[in-house]
Amino acid sequence: MVTPFDVPLAQLRARQSLKWRTYAPDVLPMFVAEMDVSAPEPVVRAVHDAMAAGDTGYDHGTRYAEAFAEFALERHGWDVPVARTRMVPDVMIGIVEVLGVLTHPGDAVVITTPVYPPFRAFLEHAGLHVVAVPLTEAGRLDLDALDAAFVDARAMLLCHPQNPTGTLHSAAELSALGELAARHHVRIVSDEIHAPLVLGDEPFVSATTAIPHAIALHSASKAFNLAGLKAAVAVPGAEAGADLARMPEIVGHGVSQIGVVAHVAAYREGGAWLDAALEQIRANVATVGRTLAERLPAARWTPPASTYFAWLDLRGCVPPDVDPARVLLQEGDLAVNSGPTFGTQGAGFVRMNLATSSDVLAEGLDRLVGTLG
Amino acid sequence: MVTPFDVPLAQLRARQSLKWRTYAPDVLPMFVAEMDVSAPEPVVRAVHDAMAAGDTGYDHGTRYAEAFAEFALERHGWDVPVARTRMVPDVMIGIVEVLGVLTHPGDAVVITTPVYPPFRAFLEHAGLHVVAVPLTEAGRLDLDALDAAFVDARAMLLCHPQNPTGTLHSAAELSALGELAARHHVRIVSDEIHAPLVLGDEPFVSATTAIPHAIALHSASKAFNLAGLKAAVAVPGAEAGADLARMPEIVGHGVSQIGVVAHVAAYREGGAWLDAALEQIRANVATVGRTLAERLPAARWTPPASTYFAWLDLRGCVPPDVDPARVLLQEGDLAVNSGPTFGTQGAGFVRMNLATSSDVLAEGLDRLVGTLG
Ligand SMILES: Cc1ncc(COP(=O)(O)O)c(C=O)c1O
Ligand SMILES: Cc1ncc(COP(=O)(O)O)c(C=O)c1O
Repeated sequence: MVTPFDVPLAQLRARQSLKWRTYAPDVLPMFVAEMDVSAPEPVVRAVHDAMAAGDTGYDHGTRYAEAFAEFALERHGWDVPVARTRMVPDVMIGIVEVLGVLTHPGDAVVITTPVYPPFRAFLEHAGLHVVAVPLTEAGRLDLDALDAAFVDARAMLLCHPQNPTGTLHSAAELSALGELAARHHVRIVSDEIHAPLVLGDEPFVSATTAIPHAIALHSASKAFNLAGLKAAVAVPGAEAGADLARMPEIVGHGVSQIGVVAHVAAYREGGAWLDAALEQIRANVATVGRTLAERLPAARWTPPASTYFAWLDLRGCVPPDVDPARVLLQEGDLAVNSGPTFGTQGAGFVRMNLATSSDVLAEGLDRLVGTLG
Repeated sequence: MVTPFDVPLAQLRARQSLKWRTYAPDVLPMFVAEMDVSAPEPVVRAVHDAMAAGDTGYDHGTRYAEAFAEFALERHGWDVPVARTRMVPDVMIGIVEVLGVLTHPGDAVVITTPVYPPFRAFLEHAGLHVVAVPLTEAGRLDLDALDAAFVDARAMLLCHPQNPTGTLHSAAELSALGELAARHHVRIVSDEIHAPLVLGDEPFVSATTAIPHAIALHSASKAFNLAGLKAAVAVPGAEAGADLARMPEIVGHGVSQIGVVAHVAAYREGGAWLDAALEQIRANVATVGRTLAERLPAARWTPPASTYFAWLDLRGCVPPDVDPARVLLQEGDLAVNSGPTFGTQGAGFVRMNLATSSDVLAEGLDRLVGTLG
């Protein structure tokens, strides 16, 4: 089968999206979370059929949740309570609206860093007070530190899998987190957008199955590269349905019907495409490991259990207080995400996007090694 | 040329959208603001090309504003300041975010009723205090009443053209409104989503050209029936650019790139389609006028200057305290919008969606007249 990553660089450079428009053409973009893929053919077809039928009005009903539930049962063995789900325009807007039901303005919400930078920005914009609790050195939840932070907090926004580290929180960790949170009357909101991107044998377990009072957000937009066609669904744990039901009806107004059509096709008919994409990402992870070991041994990393990111510790490659992302951009024409944007623990780190072809990856690694090696 | 409304009823009934899924198949839906059209061919093509190229990542740049500016110059003679515009996910989210820059939580925001029901719901959800000032009997801005309401208000959300009445606020009215607002330090946010749907000789004048401190929201989603592909742009008046620039960058995160692709194609290449659609809407307005005069003289209305709605005063057709929309649904299998949802002045009124073929309109009018006549 043709790999989804079989897109020539010239075609990638012709794209209008953020990844390919932000920098000049001599820069190789390996930053923002877009994949260098062609779209799953069933998605292209479903969108075209809806457009050709003029079916471009407002979204209605539960077909997104139904398609997601089939996917989640097959991929994660997870029985999603379709009737209690709610549609949201996208994951970040959904997080804010769910937290709006669970918190009051000014309440403290815990995030674990390093984490996807918009977490802090969206929560602060929503009038919430953000408390950052670092992950452990091994990239795991620090339950003692969370216990302390929960004393003054109302909610926690979990990133599961964790962007940028790729950490898959285990069922045991989630249960312990849930008990801790329950004891402090802290509610868990779990951003699970990267859930389909599991790379190893460790399974993905939704926070909502381990923590009955949690609410999770899911979307096909990351795993199937549909950021440009937004849609997402909020899924409550067994004890969170009534809270989610309190989210105002108008939140559904922002849902894009064509986005729903695309995501439904991805969940229902995109399995083979996703498997092929995961195979390439796994191969890329292995390539990064080999390359760093051979050509840039001062770099350190833990291969991700999930997501398509490499979270690289480059403190051994640059002088203290120098951001390696800046060096790579200015001296290596390589765009990666700057570590400190994910939290203060990110100083000296970069996030590199591995969702690309072997050729582009090789070029990116050459630029990385050539600049810092 | 084939009219955009040449879509067989069977094909309409197969749609997945809110308009065609809310009621049983024996009900004729003439309620929510979806048009019974096929999509403009250039829009279908542009979306397909982007999907086929895998260009499904995050939005970037000003191409939406550029396409809109060309359209606005041609249609409205309006010179849009592209560099000072900002992208927003859709009109309602954009309104809330723009008001977020101009107001504080708990501030009073004026709306003029009858008006699009989500105005109240979104503003209240955003923690704002909504003050409704009725339009005059003739459907015009009541400047004296606004003068009084502005004493305690921080902002006004204008609906221009006004949904459901179709009122086009004139340049003179807008200037007077702007002076009044400036005197009270009240800021004007103008929802101009229906602007391309001008039916008569009266021109559309953006509030931002008459009121330098105003900020307007525009989108191709109503006029080109692209509600399922959301995107919108905020345009500042000459003195509002700095305020709009204070809107946080994360607001742009919610913008759908494929939505942008669709709207750009609509603005740039949808002119002939829009003209054909307007022709049909004008013919439908004339048909409603003739039909009511001949067969339901107790109904009263003012033909709309804009939009594709008929705002029908049916107080002469039903007993007091009876909602004609309920009677029409229950006894006539006709779904229209209930007047009171647009404000208390809407009691005894209904909003009927005229964006349909002559055949469907005739059937709808038969049901209306047959039920109430
Ligand atoms: C953890 C996480 N959440 C949310 C998003 C964005 O989701 P959406 O575009 O649906 O808001 C991303 C995108 O990379 C992400 O990594
Ligand atoms: C006046 C008005 N504003 C906004 C909207 C909805 O716009 P959006 O879907 O972009 O929020 C409508 C839809 O009918 C409308 O009539």
